[in-house]
Amino acid sequence: MSDFQERKISSEVIFKGKVLDLRRDVVELPNRKKATREWINHPGAVVIIPILPSNKIGLIRQYRYAPKNEFIELPAGKLDENEDPMLCAKRELEEEIGYKPNKLTYLTKIFPAIGFANEVMFVFLAEELEKTQSRLDEDEFIELLPTSVENAVSMVWEGKITDVKTIIGILWFDKIRKN
Amino acid sequence: MSDFQERKISSEVIFKGKVLDLRRDVVELPNRKKATREWINHPGAVVIIPILPSNKIGLIRQYRYAPKNEFIELPAGKLDENEDPMLCAKRELEEEIGYKPNKLTYLTKIFPAIGFANEVMFVFLAEELEKTQSRLDEDEFIELLPTSVENAVSMVWEGKITDVKTIIGILWFDKIRKN
Repeated sequence: MSDFQERKISSEVIFKGKVLDLRRDVVELPNRKKATREWINHPGAVVIIPILPSNKIGLIRQYRYAPKNEFIELPAGKLDENEDPMLCAKRELEEEIGYKPNKLTYLTKIFPAIGFANEVMFVFLAEELEKTQSRLDEDEFIELLPTSVENAVSMVWEGKITDVKTIIGILWFDKIRKN
Repeated sequence: MSDFQERKISSEVIFKGKVLDLRRDVVELPNRKKATREWINHPGAVVIIPILPSNKIGLIRQYRYAPKNEFIELPAGKLDENEDPMLCAKRELEEEIGYKPNKLTYLTKIFPAIGFANEVMFVFLAEELEKTQSRLDEDEFIELLPTSVENAVSMVWEGKITDVKTIIGILWFDKIRKN
């Protein structure tokens, strides 16, 4: 395999906001030419497939400002600095839907936006849930939508679920439960 | 259904680079409080599942600077301003792997990064391919990896393909070819 790697020559922080951290690097290409790369430095995230006591998947409904639409999603959230993904998954699940998982299984990792962000998402299956209390951020509004696996899978193929982490989480769970 | 919409009060362009367009908006939340939203304004993109004359999927290998890794991907690319997604899919497929599709079918649309970008990706199936000539950008390096559907699907479940658009494209094609 040839080596397509791009080597960093210099890096500049263009913007560091409350959420986004934008960099611009100069790189050396495999052909020795130079190019600039604009990219988002992201702490990583978790996505959780919560299996409710009813055996339904705990999907949520949430408004997303960037695409200006509501989405049906799996619970998810960003890693705090140096946070262990498994602890983050526990924390986010409880914060967003008010359930504590007594069994949490790492399934896989996925990269949502490799063209411009280094974000990696760790996918977890959360089972044996115990009802506690949700604690949403002040600017978070979420509705829980318990959904059977069969319905969730249908919503994927019908194009009613269009968020990538949610599509992959649902299909992954459907695959492993059939194995 | 309650209304979770967030209303824009003001918007500011923080950075407009060669690739990324970063905005910061002040919004009114459903509870009438204010919050800021940092987001990437994206023109949208296409992802193409090319079925080569050999009946293999035309996957590609490419280095991605933001996550600092090589990925196995489906061909994809950003829409030019006001470009029709179908024309973009034809253009990108020819540019990246040197094949012209005589049959192009729209499958679905997906949102890769709803937490911070408005990017939408239109997914196309490209069939009846005709060999032409690839025309890569000066800073693009791509290797074609013809892969059977069965192998591509296995690579998804084995975690060897981790790029979300590629995972979804492969599983979508596997689903429709079985119907």
